[in-house]
Amino acid sequence: MKTSTFEQYESSVRSYCRHFPTIFTDAKGAVMKDEDGKEYIDFFCGAGAVNYGHNNSYIKNKVVDYLMTDGIIHALDMYTVPKREFIETLEQKIIKPRGYDYKIMFTGPTGTNGIEAAIKLARKETKRRNIFAFMGCFHGMTHGALSLTSEMYARNAANATFTDVTHIPAPYMVEGMNVIDYMQMLIDDDHSAVEKPAAVIMETVQAEGGIRVFSDEFLRDVRDFCTRNGILMIIDDVQVGCCRTGSFFSFERAGIKPDIVVMSKSIGGIGMPLAIVLHTAELDHWKPGEHNGTFRGNQLSFIAGKAAIDYLTENNVEAETKRKGELIRDFLETQILPLDSRLELRGLGLIWGIDVGKINPELSEQIIEKSFEKNLICECAGREGAVVKMMPPLVIEDELLIEGLQRLKKSFEEVLGK
Amino acid sequence: MKTSTFEQYESSVRSYCRHFPTIFTDAKGAVMKDEDGKEYIDFFCGAGAVNYGHNNSYIKNKVVDYLMTDGIIHALDMYTVPKREFIETLEQKIIKPRGYDYKIMFTGPTGTNGIEAAIKLARKETKRRNIFAFMGCFHGMTHGALSLTSEMYARNAANATFTDVTHIPAPYMVEGMNVIDYMQMLIDDDHSAVEKPAAVIMETVQAEGGIRVFSDEFLRDVRDFCTRNGILMIIDDVQVGCCRTGSFFSFERAGIKPDIVVMSKSIGGIGMPLAIVLHTAELDHWKPGEHNGTFRGNQLSFIAGKAAIDYLTENNVEAETKRKGELIRDFLETQILPLDSRLELRGLGLIWGIDVGKINPELSEQIIEKSFEKNLICECAGREGAVVKMMPPLVIEDELLIEGLQRLKKSFEEVLGK
Amino acid sequence: MKTSTFEQYESSVRSYCRHFPTIFTDAKGAVMKDEDGKEYIDFFCGAGAVNYGHNNSYIKNKVVDYLMTDGIIHALDMYTVPKREFIETLEQKIIKPRGYDYKIMFTGPTGTNGIEAAIKLARKETKRRNIFAFMGCFHGMTHGALSLTSEMYARNAANATFTDVTHIPAPYMVEGMNVIDYMQMLIDDDHSAVEKPAAVIMETVQAEGGIRVFSDEFLRDVRDFCTRNGILMIIDDVQVGCCRTGSFFSFERAGIKPDIVVMSKSIGGIGMPLAIVLHTAELDHWKPGEHNGTFRGNQLSFIAGKAAIDYLTENNVEAETKRKGELIRDFLETQILPLDSRLELRGLGLIWGIDVGKINPELSEQIIEKSFEKNLICECAGREGAVVKMMPPLVIEDELLIEGLQRLKKSFEEVLGK
Amino acid sequence: MKTSTFEQYESSVRSYCRHFPTIFTDAKGAVMKDEDGKEYIDFFCGAGAVNYGHNNSYIKNKVVDYLMTDGIIHALDMYTVPKREFIETLEQKIIKPRGYDYKIMFTGPTGTNGIEAAIKLARKETKRRNIFAFMGCFHGMTHGALSLTSEMYARNAANATFTDVTHIPAPYMVEGMNVIDYMQMLIDDDHSAVEKPAAVIMETVQAEGGIRVFSDEFLRDVRDFCTRNGILMIIDDVQVGCCRTGSFFSFERAGIKPDIVVMSKSIGGIGMPLAIVLHTAELDHWKPGEHNGTFRGNQLSFIAGKAAIDYLTENNVEAETKRKGELIRDFLETQILPLDSRLELRGLGLIWGIDVGKINPELSEQIIEKSFEKNLICECAGREGAVVKMMPPLVIEDELLIEGLQRLKKSFEEVLGK
Repeated sequence: MKTSTFEQYESSVRSYCRHFPTIFTDAKGAVMKDEDGKEYIDFFCGAGAVNYGHNNSYIKNKVVDYLMTDGIIHALDMYTVPKREFIETLEQKIIKPRGYDYKIMFTGPTGTNGIEAAIKLARKETKRRNIFAFMGCFHGMTHGALSLTSEMYARNAANATFTDVTHIPAPYMVEGMNVIDYMQMLIDDDHSAVEKPAAVIMETVQAEGGIRVFSDEFLRDVRDFCTRNGILMIIDDVQVGCCRTGSFFSFERAGIKPDIVVMSKSIGGIGMPLAIVLHTAELDHWKPGEHNGTFRGNQLSFIAGKAAIDYLTENNVEAETKRKGELIRDFLETQILPLDSRLELRGLGLIWGIDVGKINPELSEQIIEKSFEKNLICECAGREGAVVKMMPPLVIEDELLIEGLQRLKKSFEEVLGK
Repeated sequence: MKTSTFEQYESSVRSYCRHFPTIFTDAKGAVMKDEDGKEYIDFFCGAGAVNYGHNNSYIKNKVVDYLMTDGIIHALDMYTVPKREFIETLEQKIIKPRGYDYKIMFTGPTGTNGIEAAIKLARKETKRRNIFAFMGCFHGMTHGALSLTSEMYARNAANATFTDVTHIPAPYMVEGMNVIDYMQMLIDDDHSAVEKPAAVIMETVQAEGGIRVFSDEFLRDVRDFCTRNGILMIIDDVQVGCCRTGSFFSFERAGIKPDIVVMSKSIGGIGMPLAIVLHTAELDHWKPGEHNGTFRGNQLSFIAGKAAIDYLTENNVEAETKRKGELIRDFLETQILPLDSRLELRGLGLIWGIDVGKINPELSEQIIEKSFEKNLICECAGREGAVVKMMPPLVIEDELLIEGLQRLKKSFEEVLGK
Repeated sequence: MKTSTFEQYESSVRSYCRHFPTIFTDAKGAVMKDEDGKEYIDFFCGAGAVNYGHNNSYIKNKVVDYLMTDGIIHALDMYTVPKREFIETLEQKIIKPRGYDYKIMFTGPTGTNGIEAAIKLARKETKRRNIFAFMGCFHGMTHGALSLTSEMYARNAANATFTDVTHIPAPYMVEGMNVIDYMQMLIDDDHSAVEKPAAVIMETVQAEGGIRVFSDEFLRDVRDFCTRNGILMIIDDVQVGCCRTGSFFSFERAGIKPDIVVMSKSIGGIGMPLAIVLHTAELDHWKPGEHNGTFRGNQLSFIAGKAAIDYLTENNVEAETKRKGELIRDFLETQILPLDSRLELRGLGLIWGIDVGKINPELSEQIIEKSFEKNLICECAGREGAVVKMMPPLVIEDELLIEGLQRLKKSFEEVLGK
Repeated sequence: MKTSTFEQYESSVRSYCRHFPTIFTDAKGAVMKDEDGKEYIDFFCGAGAVNYGHNNSYIKNKVVDYLMTDGIIHALDMYTVPKREFIETLEQKIIKPRGYDYKIMFTGPTGTNGIEAAIKLARKETKRRNIFAFMGCFHGMTHGALSLTSEMYARNAANATFTDVTHIPAPYMVEGMNVIDYMQMLIDDDHSAVEKPAAVIMETVQAEGGIRVFSDEFLRDVRDFCTRNGILMIIDDVQVGCCRTGSFFSFERAGIKPDIVVMSKSIGGIGMPLAIVLHTAELDHWKPGEHNGTFRGNQLSFIAGKAAIDYLTENNVEAETKRKGELIRDFLETQILPLDSRLELRGLGLIWGIDVGKINPELSEQIIEKSFEKNLICECAGREGAVVKMMPPLVIEDELLIEGLQRLKKSFEEVLGK
């Protein structure tokens, strides 16, 4: 196994590879293989980019078929057949059946690029500059998104000036504080020093913040707060959209309609780079090219994205995700939580985290290393990295899921000394 | 032809499609086809993303082969075989033979994301915040890059506060002004109000700024200026790198070594999303994950990117580009420029622009519309969009190139009334 | 009475004159006279600038004597006898007896200028840019101070970008929130998005914020918070310093030592413009002229300032203030509060406010207008201007104080319809 | 002589005192005395604050008379007799006779405070945020003014983020550059990255920048540029207004009418703190109190300010300034400039500078030290402090002026080794 190439030539900014010091070759479903032929169960799922499994055959075959015909691959934002079909499929199978009326905006094919577009739109429309974001959030690493992202490590690395964002404590952070009332006070009090925002931006589950699930009620309250005050609501569904929580949009559980939704990761089906911004028709005052990006017309992503929507609707991925979610919750509650009363479990659908912070935040890193030794890929997240994060492909077979959980349990046991 | 889907559902931010109101289906080399079976000669080249031709067979076949083996598609920044091979090929065939020692950083797969990483690195390393950028530049649309980008249309759309950038007039802008002396003065004068910058960022040809070619001498002077003052030099080679000007890196003609180079577009071979930042080894103080992005590990891009390097080196693309560059220059100088003495021609390699601004900036739009009617795809750029921009794939056959130029000439004639 | 001059030629930015539409001529102690010979009891006290009474004879005579000798009036920051004597008196009679070791910095002669200097010093010393300020605060109207000031009316008027300040809810604002814990969380949580500040700046009583008195305990807790975290504590004692609360420094009641103290208003004795910044010796790393201002060397202010210190120490102004404070509190509690159970009384020493916000914020304006009709000068303050503010000169005679309070009571009765 | 008090207790930020290590006691006209009874000729004039001479008897007597009557001293912005008389006198004797229609705004009594108000007004009125300021300028030390001030020493000391200002090279800085064309280009070029400004702010003579006199033509060109483009023109007349250049307003020589004028220093007559902003009637959309400050109602400054206007009009100060200006120019040209061909002389009226920068910037400090030894007070200014600045009171007697110049000449001779 030759990792020296990376050590010699790749920038030291590389990160995940440090937890998984092997060289991967191929992957299928929930299994990844390395150069030594070892097979790993994948509980990381490309940070949510391969929800429908590595090399999902249905999706991949559509891509290969297209490539075989010399279908145009790159077309900026010109009209193409794959783009038309992606749009129609997304509208007909996802957006309209759920009662939404979003228009689709194609941005540079990264979640952070979609976020940049979303805040431009909100500021343009409202003629206000401030944005409310929640502490604990992660919205991306380009400077506009990073001004929202609450992670100090990432912010400090930029040595930059961030402006026009007010960070609001998430509901789990300040005991006894009603966050909605707090935001209303910031707007109403003529001595708050805080400008009324263009938008409130949020994830429905703060994944990087430590698998912090916002309650349905809180999501509805934010929606009401925004509506009441003429503020736009932006949902960043980059990581927990695309069925991860059991419904295509993660906010469906709350019965709300955000004004703007940002999606990426699994919207590209099998890890093909794609990002979209959905915005209501009434916000559609963009002038041509006010936001753009060369790779917003990656046709293979449209092909894969359309195929993914077909796949997920035909294979009951939402329902299956909910079912497996119960399975994983049950295992974690009954098999791992009892190992130490200070462990905390949070999650829904197929995104879960166990917080070891009350014991010792550093244990999480030991646990994922132990897991890797047992051929299980999972990562840590959250404050001080104290949360062991589990995010398998939604299509993982039950046996593999259980097997992965067993390995995880052993890792916990070894690290906790049980 | 059904464009109503786009009109109904796609955000009004879409732009290029407005100049080319048809629906493209497939493409090969320098030819694009639409749903009606019409064939277009492509002088736009995906804004530089398909330098080696649409569906370049050599490159595409490598991608298909990989897909067939269930090679891992998405792997974040974990180690993989395609990534290793891309790194080795780029180092061995491009970087080392040219005498550079760059480390390779993989960013989110868009040029703008690479720029964001580059300015983070420069500010981190120097502990300074200011950046010098040149008026006329285009570095991207995310907020960090956009703070550099000089296009007012794009800047205004964001309704955002931009900080920590000083824009310097490009050499062609202020008659009688020595731009290097000006920058030196800004640093030396204790009453300039301008902070010493972390970096000077520039393109070697301002493409969006109107195909403005910086002279070899100016590039060297900027390099000297940076070295002399302990400032980093960043070259944005997103649009004119990858052989576009006749050498892999566009700055080779000046014999300089920038501290940081940002590449994207054709680095992904056939339009596969990819962006890299090359930085000298001595700048490699990144801590893990200080910049990241989900799709920085798109394996198909590595496959295509490696294949592209193999292709370009084996097919003398650099030399061919130079040769065709002379051909196009000759045609434009002898066939089009004589149509009106107020036309201005600028370019090198296979990127050229004819500026109609001294006649009437709006003529350029008429010319590209006429060209489209003649099945030629080209776009406008520059101040007030007054420049007709020609950027065919580097691998375009001579006959197609001449045919395209003939069509362009006819468009000029019709619009200029000759 | 000729106010037409003002209406015709003075900028419409003028404000207090709108509540007191007469032309004042002379003033003595707590009494102001107008051109028609009417006498007014002054419960406004030049917003705290004439604590020792209008035309305090002891102080004024010193000024006149100095003027008679052709003593130098304006000397920038050169050494002069009046400056030396002011410094010695302030150190010997105020600073040292209280156990402090402050150095004295002379800034431009306005409170806001002192605040500007204070935040420069804090940012310089700590090499950090962020400042924590409390919602409800007022620190001045120049852009640095205004970035701290929480009043939206003032902030919006500037149409400016404010950076590098985090506004913290004051303890009375968010029920159930421990503000110290909140600030500690902002610093400790690696996902707060809030940078560790250079300083916490605060008033001990938010005067403009509505006569909000911070408890001794809270002041000590902030001091501890700052000490514990290596953050500087800045007290803005511009309005409530100079004995207003019963001790020279308003923070003496809490037994704390701020790192930086800003004083103005009554530090100039009889309304002579003066502002000083006191900072600990260990912060004294200023380089010459890093902050300056032409009128920081106004000798008449030094003369008056010294005389004021002599006066206040020899006339037990601190003790008298406390005594009269009890008198005023007693009257307000027993005579005015009972008029309506929704009235709220806040204050200490000789600064008091009655908040009518729970009835109707606009009543306060009616009350001060009624008071003016009764020849009593007082102003409103606070959120929505809902607080009737009482701030007589500290030297007001008891009978005048009671007479003023009687007039105020009548105004309340008339407006409340009792 | 006891300077130890200052060394022990005054903040190290003190500056001018370091050049003049003595303790001043009294002053009259152009003569300052110290504790040892030494008399100094004053060529510094309190940085322009005592244009009519120290302790000008006419002015001072008015102040004393007022004090004797218990006239109100401090009145915020309430209406008073002294304020009315100041307004009427300024309007009738200065503003109207010159054909202007300015309204008068009273700000905090420092030049920097007036500047802060001026930029607020410009940004409010135009709804634009950017301001153009010239490199070499000095507009004050509070954060809004400091964002304009070009001196790096002062800017760096703040460790602050400055936004919304574009600094333009002054006409003397970039050879061959037409500054008006440059500004027009910044506005017209759709790729300049520079936002159209709310205002251009400038001094007519950059005093701190090194006695750089802008030509009449340039002032008119800036005025035209502003008018043509709907941009406000702000003149900072803090240092060179009040007759310093030979006319009350320094811009009269160019026959222009700025939209906003900021005055301070000698507007207070004998060094009494005062600052005013003059703005055209059509800009008078201030809402009450949108800018304020406690000491904007310092009655002694109104008394002195009115008396100063009476004095200057009755004593032909403008004409006298012009006459003495010729006298000083003649001396410098014939007596000092010949000492070394590298000396540069700049100035007009009674503000002059000799630039030693082409010999050695540090000589200026030696020259002012030598001058102090000869009982002459003058200071240095300009880039690297290389300019010996001469700014005597306008009322200096001819003999004293010549005597001062003789002393200065000797200092030059000694330092230059002649």
